[in-house]
Amino acid sequence: MTASSVHPYRVAFVTGAAGFIGSILVDRLLAEHVEVIGYDDFSTGMREFLADAQTHSGFTLVEADMLEAERLARAMKGCDVVFHLAANADVRFGLQHPRKDLEQGTIATFNVLEAMRANGVKDIAFSSTGSIYGEAEVIPTPEDAPFPVQTSLYGASKLAAEGLIGAYCEGFGMRSWIFRFVSIVGERYTHGHVFDFYKKLLADPKQLPVLGDGHQRKSYLYVQDCIDAMLLAMTHARGNVNIFNLGTDEYCTVDDSIGWICGYLGLAPKRIYAGGDRGWVGDNPFIHLDVQRIHALGWRARLGIQEGILRTIAWLAQNRWVLDRRT
Amino acid sequence: MTASSVHPYRVAFVTGAAGFIGSILVDRLLAEHVEVIGYDDFSTGMREFLADAQTHSGFTLVEADMLEAERLARAMKGCDVVFHLAANADVRFGLQHPRKDLEQGTIATFNVLEAMRANGVKDIAFSSTGSIYGEAEVIPTPEDAPFPVQTSLYGASKLAAEGLIGAYCEGFGMRSWIFRFVSIVGERYTHGHVFDFYKKLLADPKQLPVLGDGHQRKSYLYVQDCIDAMLLAMTHARGNVNIFNLGTDEYCTVDDSIGWICGYLGLAPKRIYAGGDRGWVGDNPFIHLDVQRIHALGWRARLGIQEGILRTIAWLAQNRWVLDRRT
Repeated sequence: MTASSVHPYRVAFVTGAAGFIGSILVDRLLAEHVEVIGYDDFSTGMREFLADAQTHSGFTLVEADMLEAERLARAMKGCDVVFHLAANADVRFGLQHPRKDLEQGTIATFNVLEAMRANGVKDIAFSSTGSIYGEAEVIPTPEDAPFPVQTSLYGASKLAAEGLIGAYCEGFGMRSWIFRFVSIVGERYTHGHVFDFYKKLLADPKQLPVLGDGHQRKSYLYVQDCIDAMLLAMTHARGNVNIFNLGTDEYCTVDDSIGWICGYLGLAPKRIYAGGDRGWVGDNPFIHLDVQRIHALGWRARLGIQEGILRTIAWLAQNRWVLDRRT
Repeated sequence: MTASSVHPYRVAFVTGAAGFIGSILVDRLLAEHVEVIGYDDFSTGMREFLADAQTHSGFTLVEADMLEAERLARAMKGCDVVFHLAANADVRFGLQHPRKDLEQGTIATFNVLEAMRANGVKDIAFSSTGSIYGEAEVIPTPEDAPFPVQTSLYGASKLAAEGLIGAYCEGFGMRSWIFRFVSIVGERYTHGHVFDFYKKLLADPKQLPVLGDGHQRKSYLYVQDCIDAMLLAMTHARGNVNIFNLGTDEYCTVDDSIGWICGYLGLAPKRIYAGGDRGWVGDNPFIHLDVQRIHALGWRARLGIQEGILRTIAWLAQNRWVLDRRT
């Protein structure tokens, strides 16, 4: 399907605008003639990703931290929708710095909502996560799955943010679109397992250390499909709090994924498994979301998991400079 | 049933120790020969409630705010269990000061968990709320109800806290007992509808303003029953994250409650309804929790809703000084 129109909006505020998904969203919005104010502190965002946007007269960049509440509120002036994508994107290392998820997830979202209130902005789209379901009892996991127990600080911060958004919608007449993503892949992908494996294989093509036992089952979605789904939902779902899982209707194992990556690169490394049924403490060994709700709006992912991962590795191969930016 | 033993613990840390439930828990723990370090900033707690505890050699009081993270961590030294009851207890006025629930709910809980980590304390009991279910789709509402949407900032802050506790249990090997309370009533009750109605009736026995239409259905639990259930669950439920609804197996309407209060006082005021099916924005018109899980451990509430409310009004009548402390 083609991308939906976001014509109801004139000026969008995008947090995490220099990030992977954020920057691709910025480009899409500009292409659809929506003006964009991008907000990013470049702690993980990349200036290169905004190179195209910066040439566009409809784009304004504000370089600041999400914790600078007053600056955030000033920057949001004149917007009519917020895409809140900024977060501490690394699920895996939450336990090493618990305050980061609290600050960049929960408090950042509070600051966004207060800035919206101060500016009279009523609509917010939010990037939540399939990790919010913890170790889901129901798989594929629907949006109204049994009330989950959190297993990661990243999931906990997204849960807190969803709760705040719900309460602000009820209390202050806002509207929200909450998207629970599987892992997103594609152009400008700069962290996660494809990135890690590619970097490791460049350093040593003969062997590949793998967290867990390789049997963890994961889901992935191509970034352009993800953005199609978001924009479609925002024009077609008109409740006060609209919650959607975003993913493909499939999953793969970590071993599958390694196979595709190695096949693309023409490598056959020895796989060294760390063992155990999960990659790290708080890792969910099986993520597969039920995406019937977004399907009911007419959206389908154009790329399957394998194609999405292959596009990712192709992009990384053409943009090796990003490998040096991330440790 | 009789109260369960809390003998596995030697020294308990109680946040919100001077509050309604906190101070009654402190007295109970001391009576069961558990030493107690009470932590309270007396923003809503009352010194009078700790008068008995203060005569006890096993009690230490630390007067400080939950946001003073370092002080909190120092105060917790030597404890082997935390009862985290401190919160902004007023659901109704959250929209007037959204930051309060964030700070005294979410960030306070983060500080408690970090203090536990610093001190090697592994066990935490947490007072959550039935409001966390928002406008529940399933009534009576079980602990594994469909993933709810929050309707109040109070509920959102409890959700955030539950998420943090779950993630810390998974990540740092802690154990938790999360209790989702209905409204608690009984001795030392100092806010909520019984308090408000009693105060209004003293000022004007001829008429009583009522928020909503009087048909809102609510559940209440007597505070000593609540504490029995908490202590029982902590000795009998031994998972990593143990979640229990706490309430009676019944509900009443606001009109029922007014009838009991007026009957006790021998008054027949004209009821002036504000109208609408809820008392305020974010009010849940029907709260009734499924309490089968705690029943399965052998606990039953000794007092029903009517008895609990009558005890509350009797205590208020004998302790009119509290009426002057709260606006």
